[in-house]
Amino acid sequence: MTDPPAKTPDRRPGGRTARIRAQVLDAVRAELAEGGHEGLTMEGVAARAGVHRTTVYRRWRDVGGLLVDVIAAAGETDWQPPDTGSLLGDLTALNQEIQQSLTAQPSFAVALMAASFHSEQAARAQTKLWADRYAQCEILVDRAVERGELPSRHTDARSLLIAATAPLYHQLVLLRADPDPRLPERSAAAALLAAGAGAFTVRPHESG
Amino acid sequence: MTDPPAKTPDRRPGGRTARIRAQVLDAVRAELAEGGHEGLTMEGVAARAGVHRTTVYRRWRDVGGLLVDVIAAAGETDWQPPDTGSLLGDLTALNQEIQQSLTAQPSFAVALMAASFHSEQAARAQTKLWADRYAQCEILVDRAVERGELPSRHTDARSLLIAATAPLYHQLVLLRADPDPRLPERSAAAALLAAGAGAFTVRPHESG
Repeated sequence: MTDPPAKTPDRRPGGRTARIRAQVLDAVRAELAEGGHEGLTMEGVAARAGVHRTTVYRRWRDVGGLLVDVIAAAGETDWQPPDTGSLLGDLTALNQEIQQSLTAQPSFAVALMAASFHSEQAARAQTKLWADRYAQCEILVDRAVERGELPSRHTDARSLLIAATAPLYHQLVLLRADPDPRLPERSAAAALLAAGAGAFTVRPHESG
Repeated sequence: MTDPPAKTPDRRPGGRTARIRAQVLDAVRAELAEGGHEGLTMEGVAARAGVHRTTVYRRWRDVGGLLVDVIAAAGETDWQPPDTGSLLGDLTALNQEIQQSLTAQPSFAVALMAASFHSEQAARAQTKLWADRYAQCEILVDRAVERGELPSRHTDARSLLIAATAPLYHQLVLLRADPDPRLPERSAAAALLAAGAGAFTVRPHESG
């Protein structure tokens, strides 16, 4: 986020500062989903949040500041990767979550992606959020190795996760295909078959 | 040379109309690559192309019209999918081409993608171009089946092609990873291993 505010606001958790941030970020999400980032203005956010616009300017400075904070807030939720008992189940559940977020009408996730093409600040924040999420998901692969579902400890978890999830972004966001209810499981299963055949095996000196 | 009358432009191939289109589309590509679609203006394109701006307005109407035509022009080039003698070689070559286009500085391909988030016209044109390119690439899979590299004629070529190429878009465009010279071949090899394990096999009644 931007510089700390000049006037020493109330920073108690759940206090006025936190409440205003929640109101403003809710408004950003709603405005983004409705009008995309091109429709996002400081005035529109302030009006929807019911917060004085000088407060919004002072704390977030500009639209880029709002985008960065809304992405940061997404990273603060205690999101947990799925734990279904099998890697196929986990990756399918993950893909279902992705498909849902990308096909929601309107989609906050797609609006953020669009914004990241135009705001360097937003792009950096989004890249960090995704890196964190993929890192959190590596436990899916660790658990699968422990259960004996994958051939070796030398599986590049990140490559496997990207192989499983990338086709959803590609089909739904870039190719704008209609959502296919079978895609989450099919894409997960294809990545697993590739992993089983050694596609993501790294030689020991390459890992870690 | 005298200008043709306003209402009946010279439409001979290679004539004035074609020459002006080439100049204008070259200018659009250069402006897009330098400033993204947000920096694209009718005036900027006209100035760079050395074409009167009333001509640009009359023939392309607005920035959306320019975007659609530059995408249409990309579809008119006689692009041919690679033919290296093996499916791994073909998919690797295809991925190298994709990686090159996405990591060029500045990248016309990424600028077009960004534009398609904001122009419904551009998005439709781009979706059609990509659908055509994937359809053109299905011959890679047909040839591999003929050579006995794939287990059956019931391979869903499009799913295989998307599995092979999607990680490049995901890594380079959405996750903004540094280009990895091994990624084109690795991603191709992973998709092939999945295909070999039956990941993209469709039951006969599902295929075309």
